[in-house]
Amino acid sequence: MKISIDAMGGDYGPSSTIPATINILREHPAISLIQVYGDKNQIEDTLNSLVHFSSSRDLVDRIQIHHTHKFIASTERPSDALRKREPTSMLKALEALANGEVDACVSSGNTGALLGLARYSCGTIFENKDVAICAELPNPNRITLLLDVGANTDPTPLQLYNFSKMGTVLHRCISEKRLMKSNFPKLKVLSIGTEQGKGNHLINEFIDTYSSDEIINFCGLIEADKVLNADCDVIVCDGFTGNIVLKSIQGSVNYMNKIVEIWLQNNLVSNSYSEGSSISELKKNIEYNYFNGAVLLGINKIVIKSHGSSNSLAFGAAIKKAVDMISGGFQNNLSNQVM
Amino acid sequence: MKISIDAMGGDYGPSSTIPATINILREHPAISLIQVYGDKNQIEDTLNSLVHFSSSRDLVDRIQIHHTHKFIASTERPSDALRKREPTSMLKALEALANGEVDACVSSGNTGALLGLARYSCGTIFENKDVAICAELPNPNRITLLLDVGANTDPTPLQLYNFSKMGTVLHRCISEKRLMKSNFPKLKVLSIGTEQGKGNHLINEFIDTYSSDEIINFCGLIEADKVLNADCDVIVCDGFTGNIVLKSIQGSVNYMNKIVEIWLQNNLVSNSYSEGSSISELKKNIEYNYFNGAVLLGINKIVIKSHGSSNSLAFGAAIKKAVDMISGGFQNNLSNQVM
Repeated sequence: MKISIDAMGGDYGPSSTIPATINILREHPAISLIQVYGDKNQIEDTLNSLVHFSSSRDLVDRIQIHHTHKFIASTERPSDALRKREPTSMLKALEALANGEVDACVSSGNTGALLGLARYSCGTIFENKDVAICAELPNPNRITLLLDVGANTDPTPLQLYNFSKMGTVLHRCISEKRLMKSNFPKLKVLSIGTEQGKGNHLINEFIDTYSSDEIINFCGLIEADKVLNADCDVIVCDGFTGNIVLKSIQGSVNYMNKIVEIWLQNNLVSNSYSEGSSISELKKNIEYNYFNGAVLLGINKIVIKSHGSSNSLAFGAAIKKAVDMISGGFQNNLSNQVM
Repeated sequence: MKISIDAMGGDYGPSSTIPATINILREHPAISLIQVYGDKNQIEDTLNSLVHFSSSRDLVDRIQIHHTHKFIASTERPSDALRKREPTSMLKALEALANGEVDACVSSGNTGALLGLARYSCGTIFENKDVAICAELPNPNRITLLLDVGANTDPTPLQLYNFSKMGTVLHRCISEKRLMKSNFPKLKVLSIGTEQGKGNHLINEFIDTYSSDEIINFCGLIEADKVLNADCDVIVCDGFTGNIVLKSIQGSVNYMNKIVEIWLQNNLVSNSYSEGSSISELKKNIEYNYFNGAVLLGINKIVIKSHGSSNSLAFGAAIKKAVDMISGGFQNNLSNQVM
């Protein structure tokens, strides 16, 4: 098999894409060739800096560098990239795919540009040009796919159905390679409750029309707090919501990583756990209860909703919010300032 | 000030709500009375189990128990609760608020029922009965509010504007009590990019019509990976998206908590950090890169999008996804099974 790489995409360009290319060539002898598109000097410099590369005849033979002196910046407007269609590393890598030189193309460049240029150079499967971006979610127990994560902000129920079919086929294909079972992938629709009817117009129409379709294995709704470690194989949603979920998870993981890192720095002095430090201190920092207490805004009085699994710490935070609102004269302020 | 409590709501009922009530009475002498609605026996049993309670004349005088023998289960359909309007702990606590006996009501019960019964018993500020649920997000540096998180799945731009106004007033009110500045709270709209036009129909219409309004301080768009530790005070969105964000964050935090907990158990043996264990092992588990590589589904060929900040580990995972798809015969499968 052969693959083309846009070496210039992403924040790190060749310093990330080239080492990854070499590693994958080592690990997968089935790859006969990787075409690398981008600035020849930068690519060669990176290759030469990698120990063992130049001494391995096999690796040198399986890499083909294609020089392009242009590339698409992550900040460029996708519409500009599409209009100009310059011979960038991204477009040339896609064209190699389109004309059959390679079997797949990988880029970490500008998402909108990649989507548009891929549509333009390779064409689409569906007549209405439906394309969805499908991500894989962390799950130690099974493969869970989420789509769409950004291509269609306002899809129709038919489009959601097309996403469902494509996600099902992709799941089967990936599972086979990883030796996991996936005869009829369980598909759920992302929503804000699990009872039927707990969705927006799109979801309710999708369920009415397609939930008993035989090509997909519709298994109900799933809430966003269950998508990590999910109990299903494919999760579909509109691209706006999917992007929001993916980024919420990424943001939360980064936030937690920072908290854990600081705790480790403070408490693991030269590889020994310092006695005075406390695990409960770490837990307190990653505790959600402190911020509990949602306000029902628009009601003529002050009503606070504490979350359903509130312990006494969480319920106390909710009462405190009521105290703040009463003493801040919230009701008067609202009438004066809003109406 | 006086507050009413629905003692029976949430997963833990009185065992959570009653200790919280006692703590808050201790800490806030300004609260002259808390009315507690629910099963008298359960409430009294919990009160008696709390050390110091019965010996404190002051606390006993500031709690008033109102017996109700019914309560709304978290699984009950909100529409049923609204239709029946039984004398439950939730409805009675709301009625005390409606008729002016207390200044605020707190419940951890069924969200839909609370929303409906609050509307019914207390009335709404806006003629169109707009109500939004407003949550506070973890942020060590400022108070950040997110609304709507579940009351309106398909709001209009006007409703989004009403949410913006209410969120602004609430932010000012809470900040004042916590001695933080909030003259003109910075408001952002949640979207999937920060450039204008990077939203769905609702957001684009909202911005066209209301972004230069003088009552709100519109400061642009914010992405979901930035809502924790956000650089603004109020974030508005439709209730569907808000609920998804809130639950994604909660789910991620729980997921991370479990990973950290297991690591701590395995590595902190009797308060000393075991030598063989490795911090990089923990970091690997909370590493997102392993799952990198989004697929552009619907394109006639295999195109993989690696995320923009891919290091070589992440980019390698994206190439691996291409390998799996090629050897799984994805393109043929897709045409055969989908069309």
